[in-house]
Amino acid sequence: MTIKEILKDVEKLHDSTIKIKGWTLSNRGNKKIKFITINDGSTFANLQIVAKEGSKIDLEIVDQVRMGASVLVKGKILHTPNGKQIAEMVAEEFEILKNTDEDFPLQKNGMSKEVLREIPHLRHRTNLFRAVMRIRSTLSQELHAHFASKGYLLAVSPIITGNDGEGAGEAFVTDDESKDLFFGKKATLGVTGQLHAEAYANGFGGVYTFAPTFRAENSNTQRHAAEFWMIEPEVAFADLQDILGIADDLLKTIITKTIEKHPEEFAFLEKFVAPGLMEKLSLFLEQNLKVMDYSDAIIELKKVADRFEEKNIEFGIDLATEHEKYLAEELHNAPVAVINYPKDIKAFYMHQNDDGKTVAAFDLLVPGVGELIGGSQRECDYDKLVTRINEMGIDQEDLQWYLDLRRFGQSMSSGFGLGFERLVMYVTGVENIRDAIPFPRTPGKLMM
Amino acid sequence: MTIKEILKDVEKLHDSTIKIKGWTLSNRGNKKIKFITINDGSTFANLQIVAKEGSKIDLEIVDQVRMGASVLVKGKILHTPNGKQIAEMVAEEFEILKNTDEDFPLQKNGMSKEVLREIPHLRHRTNLFRAVMRIRSTLSQELHAHFASKGYLLAVSPIITGNDGEGAGEAFVTDDESKDLFFGKKATLGVTGQLHAEAYANGFGGVYTFAPTFRAENSNTQRHAAEFWMIEPEVAFADLQDILGIADDLLKTIITKTIEKHPEEFAFLEKFVAPGLMEKLSLFLEQNLKVMDYSDAIIELKKVADRFEEKNIEFGIDLATEHEKYLAEELHNAPVAVINYPKDIKAFYMHQNDDGKTVAAFDLLVPGVGELIGGSQRECDYDKLVTRINEMGIDQEDLQWYLDLRRFGQSMSSGFGLGFERLVMYVTGVENIRDAIPFPRTPGKLMM
Repeated sequence: MTIKEILKDVEKLHDSTIKIKGWTLSNRGNKKIKFITINDGSTFANLQIVAKEGSKIDLEIVDQVRMGASVLVKGKILHTPNGKQIAEMVAEEFEILKNTDEDFPLQKNGMSKEVLREIPHLRHRTNLFRAVMRIRSTLSQELHAHFASKGYLLAVSPIITGNDGEGAGEAFVTDDESKDLFFGKKATLGVTGQLHAEAYANGFGGVYTFAPTFRAENSNTQRHAAEFWMIEPEVAFADLQDILGIADDLLKTIITKTIEKHPEEFAFLEKFVAPGLMEKLSLFLEQNLKVMDYSDAIIELKKVADRFEEKNIEFGIDLATEHEKYLAEELHNAPVAVINYPKDIKAFYMHQNDDGKTVAAFDLLVPGVGELIGGSQRECDYDKLVTRINEMGIDQEDLQWYLDLRRFGQSMSSGFGLGFERLVMYVTGVENIRDAIPFPRTPGKLMM
Repeated sequence: MTIKEILKDVEKLHDSTIKIKGWTLSNRGNKKIKFITINDGSTFANLQIVAKEGSKIDLEIVDQVRMGASVLVKGKILHTPNGKQIAEMVAEEFEILKNTDEDFPLQKNGMSKEVLREIPHLRHRTNLFRAVMRIRSTLSQELHAHFASKGYLLAVSPIITGNDGEGAGEAFVTDDESKDLFFGKKATLGVTGQLHAEAYANGFGGVYTFAPTFRAENSNTQRHAAEFWMIEPEVAFADLQDILGIADDLLKTIITKTIEKHPEEFAFLEKFVAPGLMEKLSLFLEQNLKVMDYSDAIIELKKVADRFEEKNIEFGIDLATEHEKYLAEELHNAPVAVINYPKDIKAFYMHQNDDGKTVAAFDLLVPGVGELIGGSQRECDYDKLVTRINEMGIDQEDLQWYLDLRRFGQSMSSGFGLGFERLVMYVTGVENIRDAIPFPRTPGKLMM
């Protein structure tokens, strides 16, 4: 039986004998009585085992158990509604399945996140990472459930690709001209699944991808990783307003359901990691999504230009992180979608607005993280798209298949890319992307 | 409204006026009446639009619509229980949102799969690929739902890695010594997520990954791709028998639910693609999983050695595809798990049986595909594992973190890798892996 099952039915199970396996978190007591806390991964909560002198248990064996050991315990469940935990187990059998060597690096308290980053194969056995990774898992499972319930098709874009979706040149090369070519041409790791997702939306209607994405960008910030997961929905016949609604609905649904499923994890994060977290999330969940035109954002930023390092704020600039944070954290104190960016700072595939200057794009900026989502209505006019590609010096031949979608029935389509680790950061309150993914990949760091 | 919603409530919707958007599949009729079939991606079924002379519709415009065009139609739903379809729509408004150019390559009938492979951005708009990709999507969504309901954590193993999980040397190199190193060391694309999943199982109990995997293996077969998706569950405290049960339960659950959700797709596949498909699947779903010792498989294969190209059948050989197919398709006529393989042909991490010759591994062989799953109980004895690594000439330092799991509480663990495209092949009856993934990657082929 699991700890989750025990705690769920603790009243009914009172006084019954149960067997569990798990890992020890602490072992304290004296020669007459021992208290061993164990967790079995089924839930955030632990179970306290009591081993008493005079029972069938050999306390000398219990004494040997170190933190991190796996153990098998058979014992009687006691419902303790007035205790610190609502249940404990009085051990009748106790077996050490595998003890830890003495150099087991986890300590009970006080390890910094930096130190824990050096042991990504073990850090999930601390409260912080147990909470973060459980929430991460539920967010992704709820995401699939949400799209399934709405009839979206899970599409699969290739990872190894001959295209460069963003035209940004920051892709890892897996196969280049200097060696025997496996594919017969230069191959890179995809920076986006969007282009291929558009092909599938053109026929399936609503599709999404959820896959790893790569950037060979040499930036060592708290918000960038070389390898990260991205959700990319693409919806035929949807315009910018529609896709904003779809993004808002997605986020609110999966965050709400995840909070419902993890009361203990969120209580822990609120208390020890990110005080104010629940209020911050409520402010988003309970309000309509705030939407702001890029031009209006520029006006607002100009008013307080003095406070920024980058004070030169004019129509046409790409917003810096400090600007984005101001808009989300101070001006709105909530996620805000900035729409209608200047076309010159955005990707070639975005729908050109009638003003000739802007595109029907949006960035969703959230407190504590900055850009969480980037999306747009796609340009579905073949000629405009070809012109834009040539203006930007992108190889047309390479993208002819993509352009051809516009000749083959693609009349309108919108979509976005949601950086999944940034969502985990926003929802859990952890401030570094390295703490939002099990085995982070950043420049110069390739552990395990 | 979508076609799915219309067909679901067709009796109630009879005579009501509805607006839909979709893509045309055919356009026939005469000067007085036109029949346009459209699909909107919401379901496998199409909706027939009837446009009549004398209505508000300009039949000359309708006449221009080519296959693949996107259209908007407003019209009256007629419930036609005695017709070929249970519903049709009598058009009142008809707008071509985007016509196809005349070189649209899809034809109504008779295109070979080979030809369709050259246009992966369009082939999902045929009945075959619409069926396959819808089933593929549901299989993956049901898979997440299944693991979520069982309390498994969705773990994330890194794609870019410094380890080589299988010791097979068939990894793509993304970062090697000949260039400026992004990571500061040689990096490859992961061939498995298992090693990292084991770290997470050691603490979380039951975990799984579902991610792309890579092989730079120059083999042009129907069953191999350079990039494919793999599901890798890993379960602490589980032995070989337990993990076999977990695999069997997973497959039966998600296949059953997928069949329930796609009656029209399976009817199509049974009729036009793989006659006998439903019976083949039933034979698996309705029986207990067949399990066979490798040694017994050798005895059975020896009896019919003459029929194989590879006639030299002795304990110690790796089973060839022809052998695997015989066991699944002829001897058992159902999926069969072959267990306890010779240790010399299997990976270093597999649990060594007491006989000193075999490991607690299994391959699940299925009719029409061959190996669908490979799995094992893991060797959790640190010393045995180190000895095996040294015997096989694997760099211990590289894997020290993995070995250390055995010093840090990992007492028992089992898991498997399920090739997702092979599952799609098995369930849909398509015979080539290139037809089971939207944008296949094989040697010399890097389209789009």
